[in-house]
Amino acid sequence: MASRKFVIDTSLFVNPYAREKFGKDPSSAIRGCVKALEGLDVDVFIPPSIFNELKNFADAKAMEELELVVKKRAPNTYGIYLPAAVLYDFIEDVRLRINKGLRLAEDFAKDNHPDNDEKLRKLRDKYRDAMRTGIIDSKEDFELVLLAKELEATLVSSDEGAMKFANQIGCEHLSADKFHPLLKKLKGK
Amino acid sequence: MASRKFVIDTSLFVNPYAREKFGKDPSSAIRGCVKALEGLDVDVFIPPSIFNELKNFADAKAMEELELVVKKRAPNTYGIYLPAAVLYDFIEDVRLRINKGLRLAEDFAKDNHPDNDEKLRKLRDKYRDAMRTGIIDSKEDFELVLLAKELEATLVSSDEGAMKFANQIGCEHLSADKFHPLLKKLKGK
Repeated sequence: MASRKFVIDTSLFVNPYAREKFGKDPSSAIRGCVKALEGLDVDVFIPPSIFNELKNFADAKAMEELELVVKKRAPNTYGIYLPAAVLYDFIEDVRLRINKGLRLAEDFAKDNHPDNDEKLRKLRDKYRDAMRTGIIDSKEDFELVLLAKELEATLVSSDEGAMKFANQIGCEHLSADKFHPLLKKLKGK
Repeated sequence: MASRKFVIDTSLFVNPYAREKFGKDPSSAIRGCVKALEGLDVDVFIPPSIFNELKNFADAKAMEELELVVKKRAPNTYGIYLPAAVLYDFIEDVRLRINKGLRLAEDFAKDNHPDNDEKLRKLRDKYRDAMRTGIIDSKEDFELVLLAKELEATLVSSDEGAMKFANQIGCEHLSADKFHPLLKKLKGK
């Protein structure tokens, strides 16, 4: 059998639930993952933008170790074509969210209680939730899914928006918390 | 020479500056356009979604006349492929706008003056401007550009977001206010 290919996301090491079995914090989870990959016939890819994002969460030593076992590359954004329907759905989703965002902003504008700190905290939480949950909301997430698609690799992520987009374009994916048990199983073979 | 193909947008009849030479209101502009097209070897297309949108602005009589001279059809959204870079740019644009929208919402949430009506009016104006100007913000606009691209037709619109998207995918376009002089010129031939 050909070696299996994976594209990994920041969430694998940053999301506490996803990294649990690899390590208790991002740096130790990276080390745990590097160790789990030892001797396995798998190719692990990471887009440079995601690699750089990860640097904000892990120490330099862990990142160096990771760099030696993963393959860093970006998707060929100019060479890959997507069905127009994907953008069509995205535009409609964004339109609905923008309307939701306005309703939220209106509610908070009407609330003239003087507790501004509390208000802003709530506004940010609700706005973030309405605008960004369950949608591809960054170039980094987009690159992630596109790279997995291009390489016909399995996307390893716990990001809801990334998973949804992966489903739209027929890209295989694995919930990040299942990566550890999968590597263990592959080792057993 | 083959007959020229155009895809027309609501803005051709709804935008006062664009329709000026065709008529003083949407219904008379539609009649003016139908008249200007008489005897010309041109094909004018309109997506059904845009045709329906136009019904909200013009009387039934004008719409009937229009329906006899235009060709109604939607783009083949599932058959057309776009470079992934287009979606990539769109995601980044939306992300920046979402952040802008939050800054706006915060400003209005902090403002505890009791003049809520005035505040909401200003909020809606600014929010709309920040979120929707210069971006494809509806399925209707998307269909418009996509249809022009599919038919290799000239998009006739004064919508900034539609023009920008047309440029991204290499679609010919003409500012809506230039449609009248162009038809006049074609008639002269």
